[in-house]
Amino acid sequence: MHLTQALHKARRERPQETATIHQDRRQTNAEFVGRVERLAGALRTLGLAKGDRAGMLAANSDRYIEFIFATLWAGGAVNPVNTRWSAAEIAYSLDDSGTAILVVDDFGAGLVADVQARCKTQLTLIHVGTGPAPAGSHDYEALIAGTPPAPDAFCGNDDLAAILYTGGTTGAPKGVMLSHRNVLANAIGLTASADHAGAAPGLHVAPMFHVGGLAAAVQFSIRGSTQITQPAFDAGEALEIIERERVGDIFVVPVMLRWLIDHPDMARRDTSSLVAVRYGAAPIDVTLLARAMKALPQAGFLQVYGQTECAAVVTALAPQDHVADPDVPHMRSAGKPIITAELRITDEDGQECPHGTVGELQVRGPTVMLGYWNKPEATEKALVDGWLRTGDAGYMDDQGFVYVVDRMKDMIISGGENVFSTEVESVLATYPGVGLCAVIGVPDDEWGERVHAVVQAAPGQDLSGLTLEALQAHCRAHIAGYKLPRSLEVVDAMPISPAGKILKRDLRIPHWENRERMVG
Amino acid sequence: MHLTQALHKARRERPQETATIHQDRRQTNAEFVGRVERLAGALRTLGLAKGDRAGMLAANSDRYIEFIFATLWAGGAVNPVNTRWSAAEIAYSLDDSGTAILVVDDFGAGLVADVQARCKTQLTLIHVGTGPAPAGSHDYEALIAGTPPAPDAFCGNDDLAAILYTGGTTGAPKGVMLSHRNVLANAIGLTASADHAGAAPGLHVAPMFHVGGLAAAVQFSIRGSTQITQPAFDAGEALEIIERERVGDIFVVPVMLRWLIDHPDMARRDTSSLVAVRYGAAPIDVTLLARAMKALPQAGFLQVYGQTECAAVVTALAPQDHVADPDVPHMRSAGKPIITAELRITDEDGQECPHGTVGELQVRGPTVMLGYWNKPEATEKALVDGWLRTGDAGYMDDQGFVYVVDRMKDMIISGGENVFSTEVESVLATYPGVGLCAVIGVPDDEWGERVHAVVQAAPGQDLSGLTLEALQAHCRAHIAGYKLPRSLEVVDAMPISPAGKILKRDLRIPHWENRERMVG
Repeated sequence: MHLTQALHKARRERPQETATIHQDRRQTNAEFVGRVERLAGALRTLGLAKGDRAGMLAANSDRYIEFIFATLWAGGAVNPVNTRWSAAEIAYSLDDSGTAILVVDDFGAGLVADVQARCKTQLTLIHVGTGPAPAGSHDYEALIAGTPPAPDAFCGNDDLAAILYTGGTTGAPKGVMLSHRNVLANAIGLTASADHAGAAPGLHVAPMFHVGGLAAAVQFSIRGSTQITQPAFDAGEALEIIERERVGDIFVVPVMLRWLIDHPDMARRDTSSLVAVRYGAAPIDVTLLARAMKALPQAGFLQVYGQTECAAVVTALAPQDHVADPDVPHMRSAGKPIITAELRITDEDGQECPHGTVGELQVRGPTVMLGYWNKPEATEKALVDGWLRTGDAGYMDDQGFVYVVDRMKDMIISGGENVFSTEVESVLATYPGVGLCAVIGVPDDEWGERVHAVVQAAPGQDLSGLTLEALQAHCRAHIAGYKLPRSLEVVDAMPISPAGKILKRDLRIPHWENRERMVG
Repeated sequence: MHLTQALHKARRERPQETATIHQDRRQTNAEFVGRVERLAGALRTLGLAKGDRAGMLAANSDRYIEFIFATLWAGGAVNPVNTRWSAAEIAYSLDDSGTAILVVDDFGAGLVADVQARCKTQLTLIHVGTGPAPAGSHDYEALIAGTPPAPDAFCGNDDLAAILYTGGTTGAPKGVMLSHRNVLANAIGLTASADHAGAAPGLHVAPMFHVGGLAAAVQFSIRGSTQITQPAFDAGEALEIIERERVGDIFVVPVMLRWLIDHPDMARRDTSSLVAVRYGAAPIDVTLLARAMKALPQAGFLQVYGQTECAAVVTALAPQDHVADPDVPHMRSAGKPIITAELRITDEDGQECPHGTVGELQVRGPTVMLGYWNKPEATEKALVDGWLRTGDAGYMDDQGFVYVVDRMKDMIISGGENVFSTEVESVLATYPGVGLCAVIGVPDDEWGERVHAVVQAAPGQDLSGLTLEALQAHCRAHIAGYKLPRSLEVVDAMPISPAGKILKRDLRIPHWENRERMVG
């Protein structure tokens, strides 16, 4: 199974259909694959051998999709660089992975001198931007124009396809090695696990440096969908594109869904083409979901849960399981394991837990990563007897629905009792006027840790008068006393990661400074 | 990718859901997998080593599904024996493939002495029937009861999963070797290529010894569907099962679809659960299709085209492309290549044909067989540079729809002109009163071959007065003069293969006896 097979198919089966749309630029499948095989030739000329890594430091665009497939066509592996990282972090990941070729756009061009100065690796730079390539960089378009098409290296199966550096919320960033099989098994497995938009155009909203963005590019390609990119997510522009291009499918983090349905243009734009809305990477509150399902009644909603180490998706809550009723228990679940993922839940001794008992989620199957780049010890710790330890805690019910209760490391231990943040958060989210909320453990002299609530008002709401007592009274009806928040913070704006997750680490810092325990 | 992964998932995720239903016998996933791992242990005890073949000579049942997965769990490959074959043909296939373990049911028990007498291989027999095992046979239930569970051999990827002997319409039967990857890529690829019934129960109507039956068993297992079997297809019973078990999915050959919708019980049975109807393995006439779509308005119809050498499916005409209008050109197509199949069309020199030009259909990708068992020359002829030569003729249009015009060997060459039988047949099928029809080439002193029509009246119709002239007049409005039938035969009953195909070979025999050319 080769990730490039879809390109051969597209050129043979539908050469004149549109492959990519970026702003006012469009290209057919024949044009797209023609550019990919020339860029692949250029990458080889620049020294990329089989298994070598090539990086891209850029915003989303059609060029990013060309880069991904050209690297694979040439036999290499892609290293999509996180654009939110500092020059030091980027230099670390390039050195660690031995990425010697780096494609940069106008955005990346501003960072690259600093990155180069910190890099031990001698970088070969390729410039893809609006202006001409600066001195010391190859020009992307000149390379494509000046290089004959290269034959497909036909890498596949266990060959390395990508290295993705994980967030680095704890310790040094780790390079997750994903094979062709990993990435394809995720894309086909998820596609087979739920109804989808078929070959209708797909709009990229997640960044390509995130596993979700890469997975979407592969999934759209195997489905034969036109791929549409925006440099950065903009809800108004996204609505305009959905209407104009009859977009069938998007993959959003919850905050983007909120921006879309709350946008003033939502009412006047024709969004009837949107038949599949996938969301994940962060918890969604049921009120938002219910509003979104009402605003897009023709769309099938699909929730996904996963992580980079599984090439993206582990479980999916399928459209037919979505009901706009928060009292249906499985609406609090992350769905069922997708076709290509096997999931078990184990206790601290490695024994499988019965249904309904919380333990660590572990995954086996063709989507599980090859390992961490150059980190045999971390790999050995993560992959045990063929099972990936996700580090997430959860349980399964009798129908196979999986409830992710928390990141293991997010669990609050208060007075010897385990409190799972998400459980408390799901109650806080229902408090009138609450927009976003987070629950963290903060140090407490008496209880070791105490449950601390951070809330942000919904747009147009005011929570400045909110008291801890009022919030506790609201919570007490739903959860046990030891789970109640013991302190409260009302913030104007939560710290949010590029992937739309609330950065609990940032919330914890002021509380844990100069303390022993500093988790997550 | 292991074919047994789905069983591990089923037992973990949904242990109490129903795995199989056969007549009044049901078992849960936990029971089913428990029996599979014990039967796998028994097969190993009886000498099955990794890669060894085990056969089954039996009608469809839940036991057949146990046998398939137990053989794979034990590390072996299944050889599902064609029950319509003679003892001599069966003995040939067992000897050729070195199949030493054979499971037989009550039906197979009547044949097995004759098979054993002709077999060079010393057979170990396992009896699965209503009565006790005859002398010389192991008892299936006693083996399961008396053997501890074996660990899964975890075969996968290129490991041999099945040997399927192809029809043998020309020359000696050939054993098609399919790997775990082949069978899984077909099942997941087809599932991902079109909407389906999800985990709703699937009813087996195709025989398990046919690649379509095996593929359905794997597809239902990866989707987590209950698998329902009938010993032999019976339309009335199938309708009763559809109503009782809320069946979501069936895979039929066209003649079965006709029997279903024309059955007197059709009107009184609740068939509203049937959301996916797949049909293939033989051409369908548009009138029948339109009637079926009207009779099952909630069902998505999916046409599949393929062959054993591709683990079943090459192209699929998806539900959204099905319109009940024969004038829409792609309704005469076989759909588009599925996600896991790459298709090209080449001329006699191996050059790719432009869209619209007829050539040989060739397939590449993870579904393409490992080769023919013990037949390196036949394998080398079939697999050229990674491409499988299907032996079928067809063309592709600009949207990627594939039109299979004929089996290469079915093509009639009359006066130097190529006539493709299916084209003539599709016109004959629209003649009032025609039920089934076949067009073959028969020897002609002037033209080499001439186009010969064989027709059978539809139920309740009478074609005894049909003249060649009337048929020609009807055809002339649709096809060129050289394609018109030059002779006519009205038969009471077409010879039909177990898979529902008209046996053109049998129609040709009386015409070609003592002649040089005897094709197909």
